[in-house]
Amino acid sequence: MQQSARPGASPLPSFADIRDLIGKLPGPDEQARTKTALRERDLTKPAGALGRLEVLSEWLAAWQGRTPPVVDRPRVAVFAGNHGVADAHQVSAFPTSVTAQMVANFRAGGAAVNQLTALIDGDLRVYEMALDRPTADFTAEPAMSEQDCAVAISYGMMAVEDDIDVLCVGEMGIGNTTSAAALCHALFGGEAEKWTGPGTGVQGAALDAKTAVVRRGVERHADLDDPLQVLAALGGQELAAILGAVLAARLARTPVLLDGYATTAAAAVLWKIHPGLLDHCLVAHLSAEPAHARLCEIIGQRPLLDLEMRLGEASGAALAVNLLRAAVTCHSGMATFDSAGVDRKD
Amino acid sequence: MQQSARPGASPLPSFADIRDLIGKLPGPDEQARTKTALRERDLTKPAGALGRLEVLSEWLAAWQGRTPPVVDRPRVAVFAGNHGVADAHQVSAFPTSVTAQMVANFRAGGAAVNQLTALIDGDLRVYEMALDRPTADFTAEPAMSEQDCAVAISYGMMAVEDDIDVLCVGEMGIGNTTSAAALCHALFGGEAEKWTGPGTGVQGAALDAKTAVVRRGVERHADLDDPLQVLAALGGQELAAILGAVLAARLARTPVLLDGYATTAAAAVLWKIHPGLLDHCLVAHLSAEPAHARLCEIIGQRPLLDLEMRLGEASGAALAVNLLRAAVTCHSGMATFDSAGVDRKD
Repeated sequence: MQQSARPGASPLPSFADIRDLIGKLPGPDEQARTKTALRERDLTKPAGALGRLEVLSEWLAAWQGRTPPVVDRPRVAVFAGNHGVADAHQVSAFPTSVTAQMVANFRAGGAAVNQLTALIDGDLRVYEMALDRPTADFTAEPAMSEQDCAVAISYGMMAVEDDIDVLCVGEMGIGNTTSAAALCHALFGGEAEKWTGPGTGVQGAALDAKTAVVRRGVERHADLDDPLQVLAALGGQELAAILGAVLAARLARTPVLLDGYATTAAAAVLWKIHPGLLDHCLVAHLSAEPAHARLCEIIGQRPLLDLEMRLGEASGAALAVNLLRAAVTCHSGMATFDSAGVDRKD
Repeated sequence: MQQSARPGASPLPSFADIRDLIGKLPGPDEQARTKTALRERDLTKPAGALGRLEVLSEWLAAWQGRTPPVVDRPRVAVFAGNHGVADAHQVSAFPTSVTAQMVANFRAGGAAVNQLTALIDGDLRVYEMALDRPTADFTAEPAMSEQDCAVAISYGMMAVEDDIDVLCVGEMGIGNTTSAAALCHALFGGEAEKWTGPGTGVQGAALDAKTAVVRRGVERHADLDDPLQVLAALGGQELAAILGAVLAARLARTPVLLDGYATTAAAAVLWKIHPGLLDHCLVAHLSAEPAHARLCEIIGQRPLLDLEMRLGEASGAALAVNLLRAAVTCHSGMATFDSAGVDRKD
């Protein structure tokens, strides 16, 4: 694989810069978490009766560093990229022209994520990653140079700004479940078959061919064990950008909802560097893509929703914002036993 | 058990009236379902990629008898009742005074369901079932006469009016997971232990005592096999009212979201009469009350959400409205492949 030296005076970011950043990320605010948990106990319900909603309030408080936590300004960030592996091999049911067409559909308001973002009164941003310059075919060479990968990561960091309180991340990119499968296979081992699924709908011989592409890609770059190098070799520009957005959100104390398989695979590169790097993230929904369940189990995530969705484009993450909002609305709006004059346990 | 003859000239409803009504319920509108499914195929996403959201749109269309389906005016109906079995035995962690106190909390806006109803811009109605006249202790006699049960069912039917498009049903009643457990044990057999759970939080010896109460109640009324008579003997006024609301919703072409264990147990009386009677209902969430999963499996329901909630008061049903709304918002708002100029599959 192409080696890029530390750029030194170069204005472009490098992997060394990304690693420096990773060393400076803040942890949770345990005081905010505890204060939120204590209030939960006083609300007019049996202790714990709101289940995961209570845990969500505490998690939001810990990672926003504030109590009560708020979900007033969610952002939905969709990163779009094209994949040379999809041009070189038949790995998707759709032609790669669809990536740009769907970006146009996002801008025109016609996609699922537009409707779901409107439903949460969210702020949808679409980040287009040089769709006319797809990554290289990873069965022949690294998908990206380290430099290009670092630039894509930095670009993704722009999705986080101070005025948002929750970040939903997702992707659009024909061929990117192939890239996600290769990433997972390289990072977590096992069989290529276990990481490769139908994506937009390939099956039978086409699925076998997709699996073979994943296997060859991982074999081609088997010498790599640094997770960021694996990302450069097998990932995509939109997947690198997702990693950047997740890092930037941690810095900005913005909790993150991860969408489906491709998004979780991108974030899992950080988990492989250190599991705690995803503690400010929750997987929003369990994708119907079969490998997503395996990936979530490995990284210790239990998705919030399980609706057999497999669309990507942050649709599941946007949908799950309502659960966060339900949690904080109950937390902040409910009466306490004392204020409502409700008797406590016998 | 006390036998009530058909009241004849009596203005009060009887079980015979309820049975007449059950014979006249409409089925689904299969044309509306098909038309909705056909549009789903044209929307800018791989076929089926929105998973259960697509099925929800089709189900709403079939039971509303309209396409596109709408979720503009959801009603959240909470039925509250008191239970003699809870006065006579220690079956709850809370005193029965809490039922009325929580009703006051609903009216003051301080409960979880108030916050969750506001979040869906819904219409919350609280139906109080003579809280000063609890049912009888079902270990000694039938909880209600057939006449009183029929009146409670009829009362529940008032929760459905023409101007609503989705009905969420739930309950409040200290002791009603004991009643629900007895209903399920009588209707579906098995062991009392398998149907009895912690409810508001009883455990250890208190849970054993609660289980014994359930067992004795079911043994006391073991001669009954008519589901409505079982409801009268072991149920509660709020549970009978829930059954009435579910029936009235079917008549009014209003799809129903059922809340947790007690609500599903009440509706399951109808399933036991005929499984198709619940086809216009979905279980909104899987309760943390362990028997709920067993009950859902028996009646062929896969809950929409699984968030370890166990609060009742229609909280899970109100929360799930957002999923229905997401489904119809995508269905009605998304562009088609043709309108957006997106290429179809290769």
